Amino acid sequence: MSIGKTTKYSSDIHDLRMKIRMNEWSSQTTGMAPQNVQTNLAVLPEEYAFDFLLYCQRNPQACPVIEVLRPGVSQPSFVSNRADIRTDLPKYVIYEHGKKICEVEDIQSYWRDDLVTFLIGCAFTFQGPLLDAGIHIRHLEEGRSDPTYITSIATRRAGIFYGPLVVSMWPVKWKDVAKVVQITGRLPLAHGSPVHVGDPKHLGIVDLDHPEYGEAVSLQEDEVPVFWACGVTPQQAAAKAKPSLMITHSSSHMFITDLSYRHLDIM
Amino acid sequence: MSIGKTTKYSSDIHDLRMKIRMNEWSSQTTGMAPQNVQTNLAVLPEEYAFDFLLYCQRNPQACPVIEVLRPGVSQPSFVSNRADIRTDLPKYVIYEHGKKICEVEDIQSYWRDDLVTFLIGCAFTFQGPLLDAGIHIRHLEEGRSDPTYITSIATRRAGIFYGPLVVSMWPVKWKDVAKVVQITGRLPLAHGSPVHVGDPKHLGIVDLDHPEYGEAVSLQEDEVPVFWACGVTPQQAAAKAKPSLMITHSSSHMFITDLSYRHLDIM
Repeated sequence: MSIGKTTKYSSDIHDLRMKIRMNEWSSQTTGMAPQNVQTNLAVLPEEYAFDFLLYCQRNPQACPVIEVLRPGVSQPSFVSNRADIRTDLPKYVIYEHGKKICEVEDIQSYWRDDLVTFLIGCAFTFQGPLLDAGIHIRHLEEGRSDPTYITSIATRRAGIFYGPLVVSMWPVKWKDVAKVVQITGRLPLAHGSPVHVGDPKHLGIVDLDHPEYGEAVSLQEDEVPVFWACGVTPQQAAAKAKPSLMITHSSSHMFITDLSYRHLDIM
Repeated sequence: MSIGKTTKYSSDIHDLRMKIRMNEWSSQTTGMAPQNVQTNLAVLPEEYAFDFLLYCQRNPQACPVIEVLRPGVSQPSFVSNRADIRTDLPKYVIYEHGKKICEVEDIQSYWRDDLVTFLIGCAFTFQGPLLDAGIHIRHLEEGRSDPTYITSIATRRAGIFYGPLVVSMWPVKWKDVAKVVQITGRLPLAHGSPVHVGDPKHLGIVDLDHPEYGEAVSLQEDEVPVFWACGVTPQQAAAKAKPSLMITHSSSHMFITDLSYRHLDIM
């Protein structure tokens, strides 16, 4: 995130956001607006905000913080200056005391002056640069959300927040592994380079066909499973920490920002 | 900061830390332990901690957070597992309500259970890799601390914290500029790539011979002034925010960690 880079807001993004705001689009956002940064959402009461921000700081691959809004603020200023996170995601999950209560299409009726919003980087952000480089993305080809697994690797604890690292898996052709590592490594705020290339057992994953979130995808003979830290990690942490209230995006139903992925490129 | 990298703790670092702890060394740390990560220190009461962490998140070039300790904790766990920040810096500054009260060689008598410690990256960390690459570092050659200037560029506000960006300036030979940008750009947690190469007026700096902190250094004919965001920035923000108490390192008297700079390399 360099100083002075400007925001580009296309009419396509405007139209898409209006559809989402009006609940005319309440499906997944994977593959949509592939040039734009997408983010995970976590909303928590102020009393948990410092611990949660610290949890993100201690686990930057899983929880790369792109923007945090102060208590009661629902309109971002960095990733957009026209959005409201209460209406502009297609679907949300409401958790109370760590338990999933319901999924909703907007959160205006849950909004409170003490709620703090965290926008956390998402791997969908590097779909654009990977497609531009001629890399195939299996879950897009198969029309699925990417398979996501709970690993046996512990994240670093911060206050009440702790739990396992969650990863997503994208099959990559052996010949493309180096290129994929380089491209995603330039976007640390979209989870950056993979946490593992190769053997799921290294992460404690027993069966690739049964992901905890998302859907299984096919793995071909000339491909290797590649794993990235995933923004669902904080939802696992919240399930353990049991905050009185937590609101997140629904899996694969992300916030699409106004920013081009080039804003997050470290080069 | 990758998962699973281990800490190296040399006997040299141990000896140096013991000297600092025993107040046998209370001078600057520039040029010392050039392979090791050095950090700025900011200590604040818990009531300011969320806003301050958010200020750092919003200004990552000036305030790259390497470790944050929870309230009352004075022993880091990431950058060292043998240090105590109350005794292991050569000199500290105590601020009350934004005013500098005194400089001290340890802060044990100021310590409280509600104090939160922030360890923020420092440009001294890239002295090692620059020297290894054959780059001359003028302030080391001249036995000075590096010149540091208050710019006309505003940082992004977070709650009570706001203020100008502070930068340090190192003269670089024209032929070395690209190499220096590349080397420092790989260490974003040590401020990363320069914020400006060339004309100090672009940053609102009127006179390179009169830095606000540190000491002026000579600029030779085949050299250009290169500017990096500086960890003194949060001290300027605190001077405006006037927290009841803030403890920082004394200018150029940094915390020397156990970590090699290679731990922070993004490649």
